[in-house]
Amino acid sequence: MALGKDEGQMDLQAIVDDIASMMAPRLGEGRVADYIPELANIDPRQFGLAVTTVDGQTFHSGDATTAFSVQSISKVFMLTLALGKAGESIWKRVGREPSGSAFNSIVQLEHEHGIPRNPFINAGAIVITDMVLAGHKPREAIGEFLRFIRFLADDESITIDEKVARSEQATGFRNFALANFMRSFGNLEHPADLVLGTYFHQCALAMSCVQLSRAGLFLANRGTNPLTGFSVVSPKRARRINALMLTCGHYDGSGDFAYHVGLPGKSGVGGGILAIAPGKASIAVWSPGLNKVGNSALGSEALEMLAIRTGWSVFGN
Amino acid sequence: MALGKDEGQMDLQAIVDDIASMMAPRLGEGRVADYIPELANIDPRQFGLAVTTVDGQTFHSGDATTAFSVQSISKVFMLTLALGKAGESIWKRVGREPSGSAFNSIVQLEHEHGIPRNPFINAGAIVITDMVLAGHKPREAIGEFLRFIRFLADDESITIDEKVARSEQATGFRNFALANFMRSFGNLEHPADLVLGTYFHQCALAMSCVQLSRAGLFLANRGTNPLTGFSVVSPKRARRINALMLTCGHYDGSGDFAYHVGLPGKSGVGGGILAIAPGKASIAVWSPGLNKVGNSALGSEALEMLAIRTGWSVFGN
Amino acid sequence: MALGKDEGQMDLQAIVDDIASMMAPRLGEGRVADYIPELANIDPRQFGLAVTTVDGQTFHSGDATTAFSVQSISKVFMLTLALGKAGESIWKRVGREPSGSAFNSIVQLEHEHGIPRNPFINAGAIVITDMVLAGHKPREAIGEFLRFIRFLADDESITIDEKVARSEQATGFRNFALANFMRSFGNLEHPADLVLGTYFHQCALAMSCVQLSRAGLFLANRGTNPLTGFSVVSPKRARRINALMLTCGHYDGSGDFAYHVGLPGKSGVGGGILAIAPGKASIAVWSPGLNKVGNSALGSEALEMLAIRTGWSVFGN
Amino acid sequence: MALGKDEGQMDLQAIVDDIASMMAPRLGEGRVADYIPELANIDPRQFGLAVTTVDGQTFHSGDATTAFSVQSISKVFMLTLALGKAGESIWKRVGREPSGSAFNSIVQLEHEHGIPRNPFINAGAIVITDMVLAGHKPREAIGEFLRFIRFLADDESITIDEKVARSEQATGFRNFALANFMRSFGNLEHPADLVLGTYFHQCALAMSCVQLSRAGLFLANRGTNPLTGFSVVSPKRARRINALMLTCGHYDGSGDFAYHVGLPGKSGVGGGILAIAPGKASIAVWSPGLNKVGNSALGSEALEMLAIRTGWSVFGN
Repeated sequence: MALGKDEGQMDLQAIVDDIASMMAPRLGEGRVADYIPELANIDPRQFGLAVTTVDGQTFHSGDATTAFSVQSISKVFMLTLALGKAGESIWKRVGREPSGSAFNSIVQLEHEHGIPRNPFINAGAIVITDMVLAGHKPREAIGEFLRFIRFLADDESITIDEKVARSEQATGFRNFALANFMRSFGNLEHPADLVLGTYFHQCALAMSCVQLSRAGLFLANRGTNPLTGFSVVSPKRARRINALMLTCGHYDGSGDFAYHVGLPGKSGVGGGILAIAPGKASIAVWSPGLNKVGNSALGSEALEMLAIRTGWSVFGN
Repeated sequence: MALGKDEGQMDLQAIVDDIASMMAPRLGEGRVADYIPELANIDPRQFGLAVTTVDGQTFHSGDATTAFSVQSISKVFMLTLALGKAGESIWKRVGREPSGSAFNSIVQLEHEHGIPRNPFINAGAIVITDMVLAGHKPREAIGEFLRFIRFLADDESITIDEKVARSEQATGFRNFALANFMRSFGNLEHPADLVLGTYFHQCALAMSCVQLSRAGLFLANRGTNPLTGFSVVSPKRARRINALMLTCGHYDGSGDFAYHVGLPGKSGVGGGILAIAPGKASIAVWSPGLNKVGNSALGSEALEMLAIRTGWSVFGN
Repeated sequence: MALGKDEGQMDLQAIVDDIASMMAPRLGEGRVADYIPELANIDPRQFGLAVTTVDGQTFHSGDATTAFSVQSISKVFMLTLALGKAGESIWKRVGREPSGSAFNSIVQLEHEHGIPRNPFINAGAIVITDMVLAGHKPREAIGEFLRFIRFLADDESITIDEKVARSEQATGFRNFALANFMRSFGNLEHPADLVLGTYFHQCALAMSCVQLSRAGLFLANRGTNPLTGFSVVSPKRARRINALMLTCGHYDGSGDFAYHVGLPGKSGVGGGILAIAPGKASIAVWSPGLNKVGNSALGSEALEMLAIRTGWSVFGN
Repeated sequence: MALGKDEGQMDLQAIVDDIASMMAPRLGEGRVADYIPELANIDPRQFGLAVTTVDGQTFHSGDATTAFSVQSISKVFMLTLALGKAGESIWKRVGREPSGSAFNSIVQLEHEHGIPRNPFINAGAIVITDMVLAGHKPREAIGEFLRFIRFLADDESITIDEKVARSEQATGFRNFALANFMRSFGNLEHPADLVLGTYFHQCALAMSCVQLSRAGLFLANRGTNPLTGFSVVSPKRARRINALMLTCGHYDGSGDFAYHVGLPGKSGVGGGILAIAPGKASIAVWSPGLNKVGNSALGSEALEMLAIRTGWSVFGN
């Protein structure tokens, strides 16, 4: 089942190219997120796919080197950072269960006294950001986050799009509601505007599929990045982050993603999805048009094709 | 990573024995379900574990040949039966998303117009039972279900405990509420008492860990039971059932089970859990005392130990 | 402010006639309730209005002597009966607050552990029926209820429409859900089918506007029926029932009714409304077409006109 | 039933004195609101009662001339101001139904797309404040509000307690959540901090029972203040505001207040309650200790006694 090196290289490039060519006539499907003004103007007719295997090779096709706004995918990296700082104690302030509701729902927060269901809905990621902020100024925390991403992807050229961050800051009323609501329950230590200033910057991270697939590679490889040899987290923690991505990574479409794709994944409203095939590869796909549950329409289908062609589903081949 | 035959046999028996002996001093932990009177009298000081690998060998320890009430674990087999009869059309009447609430919650049903979130909460399993009942009398449907289980486990001695079925029938007011509620939305075709008569019988299925691990083996082996050679479902469908077990198999504790154990699983209030290691083995554990979220307390921990010792987590080794 | 006898008589007949003639060109507006098959066939082009003053005179116009299905208006009389039997102890099993949701919502019941918000939503009335049933067979309880209504209206000709009762029994799945749900919390002492058999009969009570206005008169007259001289309840209890009608009498349209009409009232899906002007009169209006919140469309407007013309609003003249 | 002048004066002073003396041994009951730091320090052993009749006489006893923080009672006056500016169009942005939940619940807002249930829960009052703010700076709106209150009470000495306003501003996270949440639905035109700056000042209004009973008098007298002769609102609008106070004036304790007291009323967490007896009098009571649903414990009981002694319940005497 392990990837034969030569054979695998050839197969994967063909698979990646095949999928990209099947998507070509469908470019523009779905609906671009418009609630962040700066993202609404993006050209929907784009598709990129990149697969980086645990032996360090990257196979890509389409617009896989175009940077896009990763948005919620950054929640995976912030969670990793917070676990590194505070360990399992973070679970006192955020749960580990699927939410059964939309990414920005506040109902659950009232019923569960300000404790968000998991780190991958907005409320949970805001609490995680509050933890990462401890002892730092927003500027420092943002800097630390960006250095961490560059370290993970082994790429110093990655940046944060200030325009996108400011656009969210000016219109993110719902996130201000979530943050203040949690603060009223004592589950936010810093003022909402400081936490959200940091939060919006992390969401505004701009990466290409190639960069993103490399940054996530440690999760496919027992916590160690094979590109650099650095251990990012323990094997156990890598498994656990993957588990969270599978059960909670797509808001109220997580069950469906597991059913069709069968890989831990995290989507963002920018149209990107990061998926992990444990022991095999890290995969990044991007296409701006979203489906009804807010995940990239073509991206979700591309990952389903890829999982079938590679036999990488964690649920059997 | 594939199981070396000789080595695997030896290891697994040792692992299974080790886990059983670690649990021995803790027998009686947790709280036996008491809402079904007939189950409340069970001796909590029992623990059984059985692992049947895809090459057909069974390793077991403790009370692994004692029959217990499988309760909600039967939902996996009913779903398999319904998919065989009606295919993917079943998803018009039941969802595939984690519920974010208790196994018997009715709130979600009102907000989502009588469509249960997934087939593994009570409401969903009642709808599935309604589908299996189509064109049959309850007695016939129960007979068909029992034959299916015997076929899966390759064991004609498996029975349904009539006393438990009647005990639930007499006290299952909440299930009568769920069934009537869905019928008011047109999502139940048969009268509630016929559907629930069938439903309570399927829950009252009595199996030992050894039998249960064999019955679930097709899910670990691309849909085919290696003990009999019969294909039960396609590889794709086996993967999909596993995906549902992972995201929805433990009610509002599904995220936690994935985090700690990392295997598709389904628990029952009788204290049993069925877990699937795709490509490796089918595992059944049983101990009557339940933890706070209603899953077997020792059973959950035993599976966590087993996953660590075997490296079978689907999220990486 | 008290009603001058001679003057009042003349005025009231003129007012009642005026309102009926203003409604005449609008007959058929609204939508007849169709969830009870037997009620769906009613001719919507009907309107009746009757006012019985505390000095015992009745003024009526339109179809005010045609019997219609009072449906939920009967909840006022069942509450009166239950208060007579069990006194203020009934409030252990049912609340006194507006529900903020639909008449048949089950969400609140789950959040508040099987205690309905008030006696005028279905769940509350089912609990009240369960109380009235204590120590009786359904047939006896129905008989007692009918005798009570005849006594209140001083009219032995009032009956229950068996066809309507059976029609609800055959289709009232939502009420079966509510009853079983409350039984699962221990808030129903009798089996659901016995309680609902009684409940559906009370709803199937058939009365004309004239009869209904007389039956409610004790609530306008300090608890005593001036037609017969019998004291039904104490002045304090009459005030309290009026208070419940004002805050809870129209499901999720109670606030709106108070805003526009300003009188305690109780509506039914048959298109009837009973309203009380304390110290002045008891008013019954009927027109089958319902507005969006499920109250008689023309009936609500007729009561608003009447309140304005008479100055009977409890909130000032 | 109309108040005989001489007789009424004597009776009322005796009643008011009686009630105050019955409360004297119970001073300190209930629990002072502590979520606004500046209010937490108040001496709970205080009780005041003032009744101003429609003929302009005031009867008072206890601490009826001590100023206290009116808090949510100010919502009645803000609603009056908003109705004067925008008329019935305000109901596009706020409902008129009881909420069935706590004063600061956000659940309903999500389910009903940012439209608060009524003007007397926090969310509703924040929207009302947003309307009053239209075309003004916060400072101007606060000034206008204060002038309006002084005009209503015919008393230029009334002020706003800046310390209380600032205390709420610094800790009112829940209100910031509500405001931002509504803004995300487009139901707030001004930035949350401007609206809440105004809102917290209106809540910080300091008045004595005597002043408050005079300020509310127009609601008892067909919209006209008999002390000054000025018409504040039309008779119809006065009735409607009274109706809203009765159905929605005490959050999730409105039904209970109507049941026991039977008068339109509005409570505040400062321990004050304003109640209106239409055609008779305006009543203000104050005692800082709150009962379980957040209304003044002694104040609620005092009003129940007063309603019984005077026969002023709107639901009959």
